[in-house]
This record gives sequence, structure tokens and C-alpha cells, in this order.
Amino acid sequence: MNLILFNEHDFCGDNRICLHDRRHQHIAEIHRAQPDSLLRVGQINGLSGSGQVMSIDDQQVTLQVSLIQSPPAALPLTLLLALPRPKMLKRILQTISTMGVKELYLLNSYRVDKSYWSSPLLAEAAINEQLQLGLEQALDTQMPNVYIRKRFKPFVEDELPAICANTRGLVAHPYHAIDCPEATLTPTTLAIGPEGGFIPYEIDKLAHAGLTPFHIGQRILRVETAIPAVLSRLFPII
Amino acid sequence: MNLILFNEHDFCGDNRICLHDRRHQHIAEIHRAQPDSLLRVGQINGLSGSGQVMSIDDQQVTLQVSLIQSPPAALPLTLLLALPRPKMLKRILQTISTMGVKELYLLNSYRVDKSYWSSPLLAEAAINEQLQLGLEQALDTQMPNVYIRKRFKPFVEDELPAICANTRGLVAHPYHAIDCPEATLTPTTLAIGPEGGFIPYEIDKLAHAGLTPFHIGQRILRVETAIPAVLSRLFPII
Repeated sequence: MNLILFNEHDFCGDNRICLHDRRHQHIAEIHRAQPDSLLRVGQINGLSGSGQVMSIDDQQVTLQVSLIQSPPAALPLTLLLALPRPKMLKRILQTISTMGVKELYLLNSYRVDKSYWSSPLLAEAAINEQLQLGLEQALDTQMPNVYIRKRFKPFVEDELPAICANTRGLVAHPYHAIDCPEATLTPTTLAIGPEGGFIPYEIDKLAHAGLTPFHIGQRILRVETAIPAVLSRLFPII
Repeated sequence: MNLILFNEHDFCGDNRICLHDRRHQHIAEIHRAQPDSLLRVGQINGLSGSGQVMSIDDQQVTLQVSLIQSPPAALPLTLLLALPRPKMLKRILQTISTMGVKELYLLNSYRVDKSYWSSPLLAEAAINEQLQLGLEQALDTQMPNVYIRKRFKPFVEDELPAICANTRGLVAHPYHAIDCPEATLTPTTLAIGPEGGFIPYEIDKLAHAGLTPFHIGQRILRVETAIPAVLSRLFPII
């Protein structure tokens, strides 16, 4: 937790926040904060800055906050991701959030096991918990938007063309693929498939909607490795 | 397991291998192989190719192998990594192996918890198990070399200058850092610190030995995210 994130419900006075939960615990046990200690704090979807400890005890910490700093730049990216298996989903949500992705579609695909869709990790609160951990890591305050699309074809036919209009449309895929384009801050729509990849029918549909297959080499990467490798290659600054 | 890896002890005849362990189980349960099924196989530190199922039962699978293909190119990289905590070490060894790193030093650093050095995951067999999983993912056969260095100063003073001589020497570090150099196939020596980063004394020592601090952006990435992001940025092909 490089940044203590809070929201409007944590305010308990003018520029003052009171924290009770894992954040209190972290401040007490990891930072070993005392009155007057300074911590990095940020308001979700707002500014970040410093928080001065006014009081701390076993139950609660009270901080006087001074918020002056804008969050780091977001990636100009909409990411379409075939729903990963639940164990990986947690880490991937954190990674995506840490790297500055702000628009994420979790998508069905032929090789997505149906059982993944009933994971409790897909509840909005569970997703937001992982995204928040990612923001805390990156000193970011801007929560990503996550959209769940359980049907591949209607999404790709009805929504995707508008999403990827006027963007660099790409799908990470090893076959019949162009070399990875150069890093730019061009608005981008990027699809990454499941373990085992999109099937040819899906690649055809994605291509028809405007996404060009590309690769970064011949090695087959796991999705959790491919995401940072590909994002880092497509954008000059993370 | 995109590739079934075997070694010389698995031979049970001319160009014939007999497998009993998790590989037999994988071939039976995931591939649902039958006699005459073709599988991708590779000999550790040798060639890869195809394996034709000669017989399969509850105990064993026998494959006739034809080995013709060289492993994918390795990254021209020596990676120095502050020892990660054990839970992360497993995944990181797999990632490194999948991405084609062949020379890895696991290094002490001020922010490495001493307890990490007594992890059973540092036993040679345990390390090789994770590396092998990474190779299977990437269709690679060439096992990485892993060197353990429990003392930072003697390593950096006595060994590192020779390791990084005539290479592109870099340390991933957010402060007083140059922008990430462009992707090339230049032989490279790269150091990545622990969670929390190298301390200034360590950065000074690494710089003195020939490693220049660089960054890929202002976000603070976890080590497991930083590795694929940085490798993908430094080399044109993974």
C-alpha cells in the first residue's frame, strides 16, 4: 500500500478522515505511524497528497489531509480481456489497475470455462477491491471502469465497432499476425484472449470489427505475463 | 503444458520415451491421448519435435519421438533479481523461464527479508521444477542457469564488473533515472530490486559496477509486473 486511498464516506470533518479497517491496521502496523506522521493519501477519483496523523489508537486513525496532486496519466486504452480463471482474475485486475488501464471489458470466449462466470470475484465489490489494491500500488486514484459481457457475438457485432472506431485496434494473437506496432500514445483498443487463445472464428469476428492480429514474438505467454509485456510494448510510458 | 519436456533418463529405447509422472497424467487427462496421437515434445537442453503415442494405459505412456527443431532464441540478458518472497518466487521463476531469460542471479539486498533465504523453494530441484513449467509454456527446451548470491557487496564488487563488461548495463529504478533505452538485441545486464526498491547505497554500488538507473514511467510496479514490462521494452522480440 504505497498510497492510502479513501472516499467521501471516510470524511469526519473538514479535510479530516477517520479510518478503521485494513487501512488503520496498515498505518498502525506497517507504517508504525505516530501523531504528526505524514502519509501519502488519495481520494478515490480525486486528488492525492499528504495526510498528517492527528490521533491514532487501537480502533481508529484520524488524518488531516491536504490534496493537491492529480493522478498519473491513464493509458489511452480500452482493454478487452477474455475472462481469466478466478485465481488469475484477482492478480490481473490488480495489474491492470496498477498499469493505468481505465476501461476494461471482461468478455466471454470459446475457451473460457463456463464456471468462471459464477465466481464471486465478479461481484462489483470484489472487483473494486482488487482494482483498489492496484491503484494503491501505483499511487493512482482513478478507479477503472469494468464492463462484463457474457456473450461474445453480440458484443463484438453491436458494441465493438463503435468502441474501436478511430483507435488503433489490435488483438494479441500469434498466427497470421503483424509485428508489434511501435509504442505511441495513440488511443488503442486491444483484445487479449484466454489461455489457449481465441479460436479462428473469434479472430475473424474481432478482425471484422477492426482489430488487427499482432504478436511480440514466438513464445506463448500466460495471460498474466502477456498483459504487462504487451502494454509496455504498445505505450511509451507506463 | 504446451510442450512435454523429457530428459535422457526418460528414454526406454531408440527414439522412444516412457513417462509415468505428472506428464503421463497430463497426456492422459488433458490431451486424452490415444495410440497414434501426436504431441509436441522436447528434450531438456536439446531439440523439440513430435511424439507419437505408441501405447498408453493407467500407469505409463510410451512415445516415439522425432526431434528436429531448435529452441526459440534466448534473450541476450543476464538478470540480477533481488530475492522475491517465496510465494512470488515461484511465479517469477516461471515467468523468467517463459520469456527466455537464461542467466539469473538471485541476489540479497537490504529490503530482502532474511527469512526468504531459508525457503525450501531455493533448493535446486525446486527451482528447476518452476523453470521447467516456464519452458513448457513457451515451447522452449533450454534450461536457465540460476546462481544464488547471499551477499550483495562481494557479488557487486567482485563479480558484477566482469558480468556487465561489454553489455548494456541497467538497473530499474525510479529516481535520477534515464528514460528506458530503445529495444535492441544488445547483450544486456539488468538488475531489478525488491519490493520497496534498492536503497541508495545499493544503487551507488550497482552504478559503480556499470549499471545505469532507468525507468519506464512514474507508476510503481510490483516486481512480478515489472519483469515482463521491462523485458518486453528492452528487447524487440520475446
